[in-house]
Amino acid sequence: MGVLKYTEDHERFRLQVREYMEKEVLPHTMEWEEAHIVPKEAWRKMGEAGYLCPCVSKEYGGPGLDFLYSVIITEEMAAVGQAGLAAMLHSDIVVPYINTYGTEEQKKKYLPGCVSGAIITAVAMTEPGAGSDVGGLEATAEEDGDEIVINGVKTFISNGINCDLVVLAARNPEIADKHAGVSLYLVEDGTPGFTRGKHLDKMGMHSQDTAELFFSNCRIPKENILGQKGHGFLMLMEKLQQERLMSAIANVAGAETALKWAVAYAKEAIVDGKPLSKSQAVKFKLAEMATDINLNRAFLDNLINDHMAGKDVTAQTMMSKYASSEMMNLQISDIMDLFGEYGLLESSPVARGFRDQRITTIFAGTTEIMKTIIAKSLGL
Amino acid sequence: MGVLKYTEDHERFRLQVREYMEKEVLPHTMEWEEAHIVPKEAWRKMGEAGYLCPCVSKEYGGPGLDFLYSVIITEEMAAVGQAGLAAMLHSDIVVPYINTYGTEEQKKKYLPGCVSGAIITAVAMTEPGAGSDVGGLEATAEEDGDEIVINGVKTFISNGINCDLVVLAARNPEIADKHAGVSLYLVEDGTPGFTRGKHLDKMGMHSQDTAELFFSNCRIPKENILGQKGHGFLMLMEKLQQERLMSAIANVAGAETALKWAVAYAKEAIVDGKPLSKSQAVKFKLAEMATDINLNRAFLDNLINDHMAGKDVTAQTMMSKYASSEMMNLQISDIMDLFGEYGLLESSPVARGFRDQRITTIFAGTTEIMKTIIAKSLGL
Amino acid sequence: MGVLKYTEDHERFRLQVREYMEKEVLPHTMEWEEAHIVPKEAWRKMGEAGYLCPCVSKEYGGPGLDFLYSVIITEEMAAVGQAGLAAMLHSDIVVPYINTYGTEEQKKKYLPGCVSGAIITAVAMTEPGAGSDVGGLEATAEEDGDEIVINGVKTFISNGINCDLVVLAARNPEIADKHAGVSLYLVEDGTPGFTRGKHLDKMGMHSQDTAELFFSNCRIPKENILGQKGHGFLMLMEKLQQERLMSAIANVAGAETALKWAVAYAKEAIVDGKPLSKSQAVKFKLAEMATDINLNRAFLDNLINDHMAGKDVTAQTMMSKYASSEMMNLQISDIMDLFGEYGLLESSPVARGFRDQRITTIFAGTTEIMKTIIAKSLGL
Amino acid sequence: MGVLKYTEDHERFRLQVREYMEKEVLPHTMEWEEAHIVPKEAWRKMGEAGYLCPCVSKEYGGPGLDFLYSVIITEEMAAVGQAGLAAMLHSDIVVPYINTYGTEEQKKKYLPGCVSGAIITAVAMTEPGAGSDVGGLEATAEEDGDEIVINGVKTFISNGINCDLVVLAARNPEIADKHAGVSLYLVEDGTPGFTRGKHLDKMGMHSQDTAELFFSNCRIPKENILGQKGHGFLMLMEKLQQERLMSAIANVAGAETALKWAVAYAKEAIVDGKPLSKSQAVKFKLAEMATDINLNRAFLDNLINDHMAGKDVTAQTMMSKYASSEMMNLQISDIMDLFGEYGLLESSPVARGFRDQRITTIFAGTTEIMKTIIAKSLGL
Repeated sequence: MGVLKYTEDHERFRLQVREYMEKEVLPHTMEWEEAHIVPKEAWRKMGEAGYLCPCVSKEYGGPGLDFLYSVIITEEMAAVGQAGLAAMLHSDIVVPYINTYGTEEQKKKYLPGCVSGAIITAVAMTEPGAGSDVGGLEATAEEDGDEIVINGVKTFISNGINCDLVVLAARNPEIADKHAGVSLYLVEDGTPGFTRGKHLDKMGMHSQDTAELFFSNCRIPKENILGQKGHGFLMLMEKLQQERLMSAIANVAGAETALKWAVAYAKEAIVDGKPLSKSQAVKFKLAEMATDINLNRAFLDNLINDHMAGKDVTAQTMMSKYASSEMMNLQISDIMDLFGEYGLLESSPVARGFRDQRITTIFAGTTEIMKTIIAKSLGL
Repeated sequence: MGVLKYTEDHERFRLQVREYMEKEVLPHTMEWEEAHIVPKEAWRKMGEAGYLCPCVSKEYGGPGLDFLYSVIITEEMAAVGQAGLAAMLHSDIVVPYINTYGTEEQKKKYLPGCVSGAIITAVAMTEPGAGSDVGGLEATAEEDGDEIVINGVKTFISNGINCDLVVLAARNPEIADKHAGVSLYLVEDGTPGFTRGKHLDKMGMHSQDTAELFFSNCRIPKENILGQKGHGFLMLMEKLQQERLMSAIANVAGAETALKWAVAYAKEAIVDGKPLSKSQAVKFKLAEMATDINLNRAFLDNLINDHMAGKDVTAQTMMSKYASSEMMNLQISDIMDLFGEYGLLESSPVARGFRDQRITTIFAGTTEIMKTIIAKSLGL
Repeated sequence: MGVLKYTEDHERFRLQVREYMEKEVLPHTMEWEEAHIVPKEAWRKMGEAGYLCPCVSKEYGGPGLDFLYSVIITEEMAAVGQAGLAAMLHSDIVVPYINTYGTEEQKKKYLPGCVSGAIITAVAMTEPGAGSDVGGLEATAEEDGDEIVINGVKTFISNGINCDLVVLAARNPEIADKHAGVSLYLVEDGTPGFTRGKHLDKMGMHSQDTAELFFSNCRIPKENILGQKGHGFLMLMEKLQQERLMSAIANVAGAETALKWAVAYAKEAIVDGKPLSKSQAVKFKLAEMATDINLNRAFLDNLINDHMAGKDVTAQTMMSKYASSEMMNLQISDIMDLFGEYGLLESSPVARGFRDQRITTIFAGTTEIMKTIIAKSLGL
Repeated sequence: MGVLKYTEDHERFRLQVREYMEKEVLPHTMEWEEAHIVPKEAWRKMGEAGYLCPCVSKEYGGPGLDFLYSVIITEEMAAVGQAGLAAMLHSDIVVPYINTYGTEEQKKKYLPGCVSGAIITAVAMTEPGAGSDVGGLEATAEEDGDEIVINGVKTFISNGINCDLVVLAARNPEIADKHAGVSLYLVEDGTPGFTRGKHLDKMGMHSQDTAELFFSNCRIPKENILGQKGHGFLMLMEKLQQERLMSAIANVAGAETALKWAVAYAKEAIVDGKPLSKSQAVKFKLAEMATDINLNRAFLDNLINDHMAGKDVTAQTMMSKYASSEMMNLQISDIMDLFGEYGLLESSPVARGFRDQRITTIFAGTTEIMKTIIAKSLGL
């Protein structure tokens, strides 16, 4: 029932990505999980293979492909349950800030590295205590001659250890209005005054290097302002749609993968002398999952189309992000019941899925925030 | 986010149907509810207006329109919460049996009346005790020279009182195989031996004339066999896809209408001195409903496309029918909580919706049956 | 697992009530449903049998029994699904106002009739637009010499047609404070200026005579103030605990009865050649229901004990009322799916249950109100 | 609303246990989690403090206390979220086999050590592939003169690494009947042929030493048969009631603790400038949790009473175990949403709770098994 206009090129690309994931990513899962980080080398390999930043144009070293290539990479990565190699975050969430709002110089300087994997990016917005509330930002950026002096703490920063370049949100302490004072800045690894805090030890996504970042009289040149001064809030809002859409894409693809595990397991596992799949309760549960996934998939694919057509699908994106994340959390828990104690072993993808997915209702805006904005779109 | 290819003609047609519903149908709701039947005159008016059997070709007196016209009529009827005037059942479920399987003579004889509303149709499959189980049919059809002698009881027959023509499923008692013995027959009103039982008094759909039908040595000419002898089961199965699809279409449109009531009420009702819509719980509930409806709508519209393209979407149709009916029942109950005691008054569309919709998880195959077949499609 | 101290007297009484319900109430169900009222004669018979107002002491013509007798009557009435003969409302919700707050004269004048069934009572608080919000009362009671002049409209008044005596909440328009101005008044049937509005046509509880009451310069003697002037709000609050507890008692008993229907039906109904009870999905659903009911029952019985011991169990009562009403509505809907089209027939107790129970999450305080107060009790 | 007859002694004991947990157990949580085991020393300390095997009589070195002491210890351990120090498993599930079925010699030999913590016990029933299906046991026990030769593999054995004594289920390969051939055996640590497999790496309960056990021509003296030969299945069934009851006790106490965290957090966390507890959605969610917990608590406490009175409460125990485990899993997930990213950090008890509790619907009989047996108790 596809509504997306995948060409043969897309399909070929998908098969390549899939093969790459199975050969170059999946076998390293446990190693990266235990190391609590993905080696930078793995990023560079992704870049070499052409799987980073598909949307960056040839002018800046990229392949200049359409958004469906991002969809394909995201789906295929979700299919192998990769949690740490945050290519989607880099390619489709952070780099687009530079791609859209960067000056010619910034683009020339940074984009080729983003494409090759030489530069791993992170976005630093969240602060301790402030959550996703941009209005509550406390990190400051003060102009001092040709330089900008940054002070503050950021937390829960994905790619926090690996990142070579940070898109940072900070506010001008001289501007009273909480939104108008926020600008975005590019901070390079190695800038004096920029240090990384501890690698946060999380319940899930063990191979993802989430960390705190500290900025203490960290001086960057004025050229590193990203986009228009004071437009930080607007830019963040504008890019949130794609961030949430990417989450939804990963959610639905992840749910599809987990359903495949569950169906296969139900057919092969023998309980009380017969396959689990002979249990009506199991059949019905899997039928419900398949239905929920198909509904989410249909809605999402239409949404991808509309997003690519440049339509304002803010409320629909919220719906897709919220519905798919809630669905996938319920689903993986039900699948856990199916697998029983075997599913609880760390060696089982179900265990990792259960731990790793839990964040999906929380990051990129919680379900509460999604519902609040959907309600607004209904005129409430 | 429309994926359906509505033309300007379709849109114009929709506005006409909408106006018709608001003028010719909605104002009669309470009258028909109290009469426990829709007058035959109302059917004829629908026919005159061109709103019956859009798919019947000009050759047989119809307009020969595409399936989207059926979708439009069904959606607009659902929007006014009409329960009794079962145009969808007639146009898109029963008449297609004649249209697809009828002989040239049968089509010439019956289709023009079906289009004009002179002939109201019903399909008689369900029997007391047998439920939707075709294999358990007990009504018999025995050949006797040039005639067929029918005996048996059918129950829960929609349009049971009004019907002028019945598509009847009965089995040849001489054939042991429960499926191979079933054929379909056309029985006209007035045929000796065909009587109507009592008008069934139902919790909901008061204006719908559901009844029992009795066949006692009822003789029909052999020409009234519909389709190939012994293919009754196959024909029923083949037409079930559209029946379930029509249900899903009505469900989603009904849910969309109910959400509109709820949003409007939440904005205007004052509780404890402020609009109900200021309650976060109300906002979230309505946001959840809107999300569920949108997911169902996206899936359904893709499905309509595929159905029109002649694809086999059996499992997807089950998903849509089951998901939309469960959703709409939960939703109308939540809306009832919103309206409070006012919603419980018979004069409120919420009360009627609550009563009337309850059947949607039961008819055209229960949710259990849907899940069973979906599970089969997963290889379980 | 009983925690309630039922004696042999209680058990004997329960059997008597049960027999009475089966002989004198159950057979009249359809007749009363169609008449949309229970004849006053049925009330008098209940009184004669000793099943009204068990708590009224001998001094005032009552039997002076403990609260468990009220529990028994309520449970046995719920077991026959009686919706209209609102003995619980009369005996355990309205009459207690007189019993607790009445003067000696008021008690002597009214209680014997309440016990015998000669006086049917109603409580008139709700007004159009005001819902359950006592602060928003618009009905006025102004002193004029030895009389009080009442003006206003009350709606959704149970026993509104049958009632011989109304406990009315109205406010003194001279007192600004919305709560401090509210007093309770006793208004007898036949008082000039007191008229009944239309019998409200409801989706469910057809035999319950819910109506609007109009007061237009209705003059009552000052002696008919009930309780302390200005304490109306406090008295209403104080009696709400028992009102909500009674609802919970009826809910749990009703759910227990419905489960019995469902279990019996699952054993006897044959679907596809085998009893419904052989379906694992059916088994699991009924097991879930039984569990939910048992949890609610255990909590409720403890609560009854504490209520009888005079403890403040406000929050617990909210929990019981909210949980049991939500449970019973979900449950009857699931049972409907079990019964299929047969359950939808008006002659089925499932259909009536489905319609009648819907109000339980709404009356005596909505689930929203319950949750709000429970949250307060958690310090939120 | 307590129905349990706690004396002052009980209450004093509870305070002691609570203090012990806070001083001797809670501070070691992270250390034990990281070590993936609880040191044997911690078991001995528990024994010294008198918190192991309260039910063992003085004759065998125990305190001979009633079951409420076990309830208290279990609840207080659940309150500190201790996952690894499986005192409940030892004291109330494994040791009772010896206490009930052991010979005088066995009791004298083993019970004092069980009480002091010198002997840590495990029960070895589950096998790879067989799940909880006793009928499918493949481990064999063959008599050879005065000895019994054991062969087989057991998996998912809690205390698998620490255990000094194993209660093992194995079958006599000469007896065809799958149930009649099963007996229980006592196998001591150090017996040749008994080796421990790998420490299973689980998603949750990191400090719990779950392991595989291997038996390869492992010879034990005939005196080590526990209970009557061939009664293994019966004994396992008989002890399951208490095992499931203990699970329910831990579940409800765990849920009560988690609710406390959530309420405290909701009051102190500031989101968008106001406490989280001001959000109606948060209030309602916590009110729902409190209600569910209270219902489960009331049912459970009645059940404990009945269990202590020796009643057959098989079905009720299933209800309590299933309902409380499903509740607590839903609840901790909702609490995770409340805490947001902070809840996902390993240092948060919410993260550990989320991981650790997931097993509660699976062990001691899955929810599916519970529902199956409940349905049977309904006559289905």
